[in-house]
Amino acid sequence: MKEVRFFYVPDVKNSTELPAEEMVHAVRVLRMKQGDELFLMDGAGYFYRAQVAMTSAKHCFYTIKEALYQKKSWRGHIHLAIAPTKDIGRIEWLAEKVTEIGIDEITFLNCRFSERKQLRIDRIEKIIISAMKQSRKGWKPIVNEMTSFGDFIRRVSATTSSNKKPSINKFICHCYEEIKKKDLFSLLTKRNALERDVLILIGPEGDFSIEEVDLALSNGFQSVTLGDSRLRTETAGLSAVAMAQLTNRERNNIFIDIKDEEGGV
Amino acid sequence: MKEVRFFYVPDVKNSTELPAEEMVHAVRVLRMKQGDELFLMDGAGYFYRAQVAMTSAKHCFYTIKEALYQKKSWRGHIHLAIAPTKDIGRIEWLAEKVTEIGIDEITFLNCRFSERKQLRIDRIEKIIISAMKQSRKGWKPIVNEMTSFGDFIRRVSATTSSNKKPSINKFICHCYEEIKKKDLFSLLTKRNALERDVLILIGPEGDFSIEEVDLALSNGFQSVTLGDSRLRTETAGLSAVAMAQLTNRERNNIFIDIKDEEGGV
Repeated sequence: MKEVRFFYVPDVKNSTELPAEEMVHAVRVLRMKQGDELFLMDGAGYFYRAQVAMTSAKHCFYTIKEALYQKKSWRGHIHLAIAPTKDIGRIEWLAEKVTEIGIDEITFLNCRFSERKQLRIDRIEKIIISAMKQSRKGWKPIVNEMTSFGDFIRRVSATTSSNKKPSINKFICHCYEEIKKKDLFSLLTKRNALERDVLILIGPEGDFSIEEVDLALSNGFQSVTLGDSRLRTETAGLSAVAMAQLTNRERNNIFIDIKDEEGGV
Repeated sequence: MKEVRFFYVPDVKNSTELPAEEMVHAVRVLRMKQGDELFLMDGAGYFYRAQVAMTSAKHCFYTIKEALYQKKSWRGHIHLAIAPTKDIGRIEWLAEKVTEIGIDEITFLNCRFSERKQLRIDRIEKIIISAMKQSRKGWKPIVNEMTSFGDFIRRVSATTSSNKKPSINKFICHCYEEIKKKDLFSLLTKRNALERDVLILIGPEGDFSIEEVDLALSNGFQSVTLGDSRLRTETAGLSAVAMAQLTNRERNNIFIDIKDEEGGV
């Protein structure tokens, strides 16, 4: 079984060689040689069947043979904004899983009760790119730098109100019993077919502050629960994305499945 | 914020002291003393508010103050049978997450293409008990020893046909394009309201063998897909359980939420 090799080359159209990091992997780790087949992904819907044209210690040039377009398998824009967990492994795990399941954008929130105030976005990017390759996702999720809760809400509010098209469904998940909550999955199932863009906020281990919840509610977010289970932050994030996916799926999608080839032993 | 302490005591009714492992945690790690409050869980629906009656180096006796019943928040029996991943961390992660989300039974399968043929069930049990405590789940999932795929299918088949009540929905997820598949989530959504028991099979990294799929199909399993995403084994397991949960949920369930108490610094 000869494994198919994927490389992330965002600027594939304007380049003829792999970016430094992918080059190292191709040349030094996989020891790819002239004539070897590889697949390039631009993260914007295209896969390219390509061939190694020339390698050196610091370069790996390619020739494109064929372009393959992958239609996104869900409708709308799924955006998760979440406070990263104290344990970095848990949030990295989440980044991998939501990429596999399918997401368009992730924002990390700095909240009043956040236990983690900093995050290395470059590490998250690497995990996401690896998960994209593994799960053959043609579309790279946007990953935003950590932002304060207040700034994020105000920015979202300004954007959605300025374009006169408030078709985005905005939700905040929290555990305050005194604030009425609707069931997220029911709302997602019942919503208007034209309103497919979803933004879901998930708080830190100690929840959002009540002031944060109030700020979100006064900016058009809906107060929701994910159900009866008491979930960890990263499990809540994953459940919310799974619900958005299940209710936004395109059925009978034409799907590019690049097979591992037979060969060797 | 004084944290509420949970201890798993399956035989709570016939005992007056914590089992060895929980005793070590209570006495040596948390240094609990006479009069301290603790919560016991029997994994069969009951939480018990209790108090430490006496401790010694090797014992922790308790007195029960109140029994609290937690109704299960989903209908039917959700059973996942999955081939464990080569990387043990991934299957341990799965055990934690499905416990949080809600599951009744997990079976580990030894398949033709399994990369992992052995599994320490005691480690999985520990992870599940820890997740039960963390997510306040009153019902402990049953964890079965690793079993060969063939034996498992024949056992399930014998059980479901002998009790003349084939109300269990049995599914096998696989990637063979030549075998027709239905969409699992659609089937779960549309099924008869009386058929709430679900058994879902997920194969190893290299998928089930075609003979395994055939054996399952000839024993009443339905051939299904989880959707258009190419998922890792553990992500497939989690997605399948999430789908079963979302379609089996009891709404408006009375839920015991034991709060962390204010107190101390």
